[in-house]
Amino acid sequence: MVCDTYHVSQKIRQPLASLYNSKSSPSFIATFPARTSSYRPLSAATISCSSFTWDDVVRVSQPDYLPDDSSDLRGYFEKIKICNRGSQKQSDFFPFIVEDQIVGYVHNGFANQLRGFRDVFVHSENNGSGYGSYMTLNSKLRTPDERTRAVGEVIKCLGEEELIPGIRNELYPVSSSFGAPIFFSLERAAAPYFGIKVYGVQMNGYVERNGQKFLWIGKRSQVKPTYPGMLDQLVAGGLPHGIACGKNLIKECEEEAGIPTSLSSGAIAVGAVSYMDIDGYSYKRDVLFCYDLKLPEDFVPQNQDGEVEGFQLIPVTQVANVIRRTKLFKPNCSLVIIDFLFRHGYIRPEFFGYLDLLQSLKSGDCS
Amino acid sequence: MVCDTYHVSQKIRQPLASLYNSKSSPSFIATFPARTSSYRPLSAATISCSSFTWDDVVRVSQPDYLPDDSSDLRGYFEKIKICNRGSQKQSDFFPFIVEDQIVGYVHNGFANQLRGFRDVFVHSENNGSGYGSYMTLNSKLRTPDERTRAVGEVIKCLGEEELIPGIRNELYPVSSSFGAPIFFSLERAAAPYFGIKVYGVQMNGYVERNGQKFLWIGKRSQVKPTYPGMLDQLVAGGLPHGIACGKNLIKECEEEAGIPTSLSSGAIAVGAVSYMDIDGYSYKRDVLFCYDLKLPEDFVPQNQDGEVEGFQLIPVTQVANVIRRTKLFKPNCSLVIIDFLFRHGYIRPEFFGYLDLLQSLKSGDCS
Repeated sequence: MVCDTYHVSQKIRQPLASLYNSKSSPSFIATFPARTSSYRPLSAATISCSSFTWDDVVRVSQPDYLPDDSSDLRGYFEKIKICNRGSQKQSDFFPFIVEDQIVGYVHNGFANQLRGFRDVFVHSENNGSGYGSYMTLNSKLRTPDERTRAVGEVIKCLGEEELIPGIRNELYPVSSSFGAPIFFSLERAAAPYFGIKVYGVQMNGYVERNGQKFLWIGKRSQVKPTYPGMLDQLVAGGLPHGIACGKNLIKECEEEAGIPTSLSSGAIAVGAVSYMDIDGYSYKRDVLFCYDLKLPEDFVPQNQDGEVEGFQLIPVTQVANVIRRTKLFKPNCSLVIIDFLFRHGYIRPEFFGYLDLLQSLKSGDCS
Repeated sequence: MVCDTYHVSQKIRQPLASLYNSKSSPSFIATFPARTSSYRPLSAATISCSSFTWDDVVRVSQPDYLPDDSSDLRGYFEKIKICNRGSQKQSDFFPFIVEDQIVGYVHNGFANQLRGFRDVFVHSENNGSGYGSYMTLNSKLRTPDERTRAVGEVIKCLGEEELIPGIRNELYPVSSSFGAPIFFSLERAAAPYFGIKVYGVQMNGYVERNGQKFLWIGKRSQVKPTYPGMLDQLVAGGLPHGIACGKNLIKECEEEAGIPTSLSSGAIAVGAVSYMDIDGYSYKRDVLFCYDLKLPEDFVPQNQDGEVEGFQLIPVTQVANVIRRTKLFKPNCSLVIIDFLFRHGYIRPEFFGYLDLLQSLKSGDCS
C-alpha cells in the first residue's frame, strides 16, 4: 500500500525553516529537533505508508513546505471522500433485516456465499414487504444467544475459506441504532460484509502551552494487520458488545497510551462523526464517538500493547497541514481531527466550504 | 404569549437547597443570593415569558427543584421540536428560484399576494422544468442591485399593508448556500415569507472556576419586538449582507454585552446548528454559526444598546436544567446551548438518544 502525498510533486518545495521556539516549547523541541538543513524532499515516489518517518511527517507539516493556503478546505474534503467511497454502488446491496428492523446491508455477491447456510440466513425475494429483496435470519433463531452462535458458526466457515479474512474473535453488537435492542452479536471482521453499524471511540489528546495547542499523534505499529505504520489518534478503539463508551475509552487510554485513570477520567465526550464506505462486498457504516483529553504538559504517552510504534506532540496547525496535504493518517482519523479543528476554531466560517465540510463529517447514518 | 414550564405542576417540588459555595463562587453569589427559605412555586399558572424574574430562573434551575434525571434527554428533544415545526406542511410551499438555483420557498397563499407585482415576481406553473410550480423574479431584473431595489419596493408595499409586519430596514443576502454568489438582498422581516436561508452568529460566553463552568445568560429587554423578556445567549445577531461572521460577532459583542475587542477576538468558531420552522406563510430556514468565548472571572457584561435587561452567570449544569425543564429561553438559543452541552461533555454517549439529539441540531438545511 503506497500512500502518496497530494500535490507535493507538482508544487514548489521550500527548504525548512525552524518553527520551533525553544523557549516556549521545550518538550516539543525534545521530540522534534529543529531542522534548518539536510532537506530531503518528500514525494509520492519516496514515501509509502509503512516507510515514512517522524522526520518526514514534521517536514511536510511545516507551513512553508508548500505554498498552499490553510483556509483552502479542499485537502480536507479529499480525506472525507476517501472514507466515503462507493455511494453509487448502494444498489448492489440489499437490506439485512432482523425483527423488522434494518440492521445492515449485504452485497448480492456475498449473499450468494450465504446460500449454503439456509438454517441461518434466509434470502427473501421481493414479496411486497416494502423492503424489496432482503436478507434475514432463519426464524428458528429466536434469541440473541441462538443467533450469535449460529451466525458465528457461519462466519467461522467463511473465515476458514478466507471469504472473510482477519477474524479477530471480537464480538460487536447488532442493532438498528445506538442504544436500541441488540438482536445478536457478530464477529468484528464480518461487520462490513453484513453492513452493520459499528461504533467506536476516538480521542484527541492535546496539550496547551502559552495559548498554543499541540496534539499527541500516534504512529501505528508495522505489525498491525490494518494500516501498519500510518499516523493515528492518541487513543482509539472499537466498541465491543457490553461496554459503555466512557469505560471503553478509559481501558483504551491505558492500553494504547499508558494514560492512567486519574487523567483519562478527565476525557470529555464532544460529539460524533460517521461515514459509509463501500468497497467490493464491504459496506462500512462506522460511527465514531469523539473525545478530547487535555493532558498535562509533562505527560508522555507510553504504548502498553505493542500496537503503537511511537507518539509525537505536534502543533495543531501543523497536524492540520498533514491532514490537508497527505494521506499519512489512517483514513478515519482525518474525520476525528477535522472535527477537532472545527470545535477548536482552526476551521472558520470565513473559509469557503465551511458548512459543507462540517456536514460531511456525518456522511454516514449517524444513529 | 405564555411560557408554561414543563411538567412542573405535575411533579413534587422541593424546597431550595443552597448550591452556592461562597468560597469558590464569589461573583456568582453576588448575583444569585442563596435561598433556603421563602420558597415560591413556579408553575404554568404563575409564569409568563414577560414576567418571570432571575429568582424564578435560579429556582427552577436547581438540581432538587424537580426529581428528574439530567441524563433524560426528552426535555432537549422538546426544545428542538419547538424550533422545527410544520415539516408536514412543506407541500404548501413551492420553490423560489433565481438563476436556476433554489434560494427559498413561498407559500401558495403568500404567492397570491405577490400576483399584483408581475414586474417583479413571476409565478411559473408546472411546465416540465423539473421544479414543478415555482416562483421566480422577472427576467428583466438582471443585476443584484436591480433585484434588491425592485423586491424592496414590493416589501415596502406589503409592509404598509401589514402583510409583512415588523420591517427592520436591514438587508440579508439571498443565495443558494453560504459563500455562494449573492443574487440580491432582502429585508430581514421578509426573509421567512420567501423561505430564504438566514445566517446568524450566536456566542456562548463562559467562565471556568475551579474546574466548574458557568454560562453568562442574558434576559431580553421587555421592549424587544420578538421574544421580550425571555432568556438569551450572551451575544447573538443576524448576519447582514456584506459582513463576515467573525467581524459581525465582534460588533455584536460590543453592542450587546460591552465586550471589548481585546476579549472578543478570543472567541472561537465551534460549528453551526440549523432548523426549519413552518408557521402559516412563514418558512424559517436558519443557520446559526456557534462561537465560544471563555471570559475572565472578573469580567461582567454590560449591555450597550438597550436590548438586554440584564445578565447572570449560571453554572452550566443549571442552565442545562432550565433548557430541559422550561421554555424560558428564546427557542433557537436552546439549540446553541445544547450544542455547547455536547461539545463540553455535559451530554454523553451513555445518555439514551445521544446520536439522535446530536443530529437534530442540524435539522434544517445546514448549507
